[in-house]
Amino acid sequence: MNNKPTRVVLYGAGLMGAVIIRYLLEKGFELAGVIDNNPELVGKDAGTVAGLERELGVPISADAEAVLSQGADIAVLTLLSLMTDMEPFFAACARHGVNAISTCEEAFFPQTTSPEITERLDALAKEHGVTLTGSGYQDVYWGNLATVIAGSTQQMTALEGVSSYNVDDYGIALAKVHGVGMTPEEFAREVADANVPSFAMNVPGWIASQLGLHMTGISQVLMPAYSDHPVKSTTLGREIQPGQALGMAARATATTREGIDIVMEVRGVVYEPGDVDLNSWVITGEPTTKVDVDKPNTVELTCATVVNRIPQVIAAPAGFTTVELLPPARYLPTLDQR
Amino acid sequence: MNNKPTRVVLYGAGLMGAVIIRYLLEKGFELAGVIDNNPELVGKDAGTVAGLERELGVPISADAEAVLSQGADIAVLTLLSLMTDMEPFFAACARHGVNAISTCEEAFFPQTTSPEITERLDALAKEHGVTLTGSGYQDVYWGNLATVIAGSTQQMTALEGVSSYNVDDYGIALAKVHGVGMTPEEFAREVADANVPSFAMNVPGWIASQLGLHMTGISQVLMPAYSDHPVKSTTLGREIQPGQALGMAARATATTREGIDIVMEVRGVVYEPGDVDLNSWVITGEPTTKVDVDKPNTVELTCATVVNRIPQVIAAPAGFTTVELLPPARYLPTLDQR
Repeated sequence: MNNKPTRVVLYGAGLMGAVIIRYLLEKGFELAGVIDNNPELVGKDAGTVAGLERELGVPISADAEAVLSQGADIAVLTLLSLMTDMEPFFAACARHGVNAISTCEEAFFPQTTSPEITERLDALAKEHGVTLTGSGYQDVYWGNLATVIAGSTQQMTALEGVSSYNVDDYGIALAKVHGVGMTPEEFAREVADANVPSFAMNVPGWIASQLGLHMTGISQVLMPAYSDHPVKSTTLGREIQPGQALGMAARATATTREGIDIVMEVRGVVYEPGDVDLNSWVITGEPTTKVDVDKPNTVELTCATVVNRIPQVIAAPAGFTTVELLPPARYLPTLDQR
Repeated sequence: MNNKPTRVVLYGAGLMGAVIIRYLLEKGFELAGVIDNNPELVGKDAGTVAGLERELGVPISADAEAVLSQGADIAVLTLLSLMTDMEPFFAACARHGVNAISTCEEAFFPQTTSPEITERLDALAKEHGVTLTGSGYQDVYWGNLATVIAGSTQQMTALEGVSSYNVDDYGIALAKVHGVGMTPEEFAREVADANVPSFAMNVPGWIASQLGLHMTGISQVLMPAYSDHPVKSTTLGREIQPGQALGMAARATATTREGIDIVMEVRGVVYEPGDVDLNSWVITGEPTTKVDVDKPNTVELTCATVVNRIPQVIAAPAGFTTVELLPPARYLPTLDQR
């Protein structure tokens, strides 16, 4: 970045995208374009969408092909949570020779939950010489935080993580896969029986891969949460009534050939005043170690991790390359710190 | 380690060394020899010293030259805390073509506190094609734990760490540099005025190096701790009286050209019943994140980190290579997990 600035396209200008626009500029990246098909955003200046005091001369465009055709070093995709939904967006970047990093939670380690899609994207990425990957909060707080502690352990029998976040902070796509506002019947049909992999399901594979462990099985339990009083959801734009889910907790439990269990529970519900995020890991063994993150700001941490990852992703080998194979995300000083 | 086991010499069979013998065996390393000049240990079998139920056929030897001459892949040095004391031991390993990893706290990042010694050892290590380094608890809990969190931060102004440990757990060498049992006059003369770098002093340089920040200054404050009642020290083998130090807190504060302060406070005192280790980091910025380790077992974590580091150190480039330049320590499964 000492010479030509890295050109970044943002694909998705919702709640996360607005934060990422500012973060990119603060770190000296060039905003090469912003894509979103929301009619309320199209044509607006990216600076306005990001809440900046100045215009950036970058209008939000609904024409992805046109924006990607102009070329960029990397695209940041803040769109959807599942690989089935994300495949065309990743593919479009690859076909235009643009690397991509996504906050898509399944993209963190999609090899086990969506192997065919991952293989197709891996082949396409290699054909076009680009890297596709997933990152965000999970990269640090569901991943390297646990494995860094594991590296100080003599003998472990289990790694168990718990993380909670406010589903109202991440937009409508994330709220939907958490069953927010759904009746028990709707939850059963659209979430539980749909066999949608929860965010927790991608964590054990990521950890096992980084540690060289061999997973022998994985299962998940989904637990919808209900309140006895109405709770306001800004993302849904209405009150969630008793009998409608506030979201859910999902617990994934994996076994390994090495006898080490890997357990991740993620709790995503609409928060009420006073609720705060939590994130903790217990590594059980010799010794047992517990680490707690105090009220992590999951939105800012997600956006910052993705932006800090950009140089590593551009430098990474071509393919669908998950981040457990790269060094941990590294702090990039802001422009005014250089 | 799939074929020939890695041959490890242990240099120093004190409190830490006894734990490390067992850890090495559990992970399939071959104990090639144990060196210690303590007359109470010389001639005893390493299995006995480690509290194992079987003998290992490895007697503790006071003859370092003889043990190192037999050759080994790496030596684990659990001896002394300062580079001035450690130089001959590191040098002996290098001259015999044996890599070395030490729990010596200053060896974690000795470039700023003992630059000449580090340069001499670096040259000697390169001449003999070996890697010399320092690791232990600090590698994870004063190092990568902080920088992994930094990697999820958009803009930070400070990293501040606090860590406490029981100086009674680490043997006489460590107790001495903490002023344990000293009167204020002795503490002033032997610790404060002696300008001995505290363990805290090596942390900011390590972090700055890994993050590519440029330190512009560093200073330390030493704070001896006194009790109003006698406290028993097993390491000193006597009660510490009021007016004699239980140990000290040391706070190092570094500034960087990037405007990011790096502060580390280490508190090493003789514990009383009920006292527990603590370790926390606050990364101040956007966002501010606090992480706490709940009662870390610093002795076990130190020994486990050093043992987990062995394959990386053997594979690292020759020279005095500090561990912030290597990937984080990685969990090695025990033999019965393979």
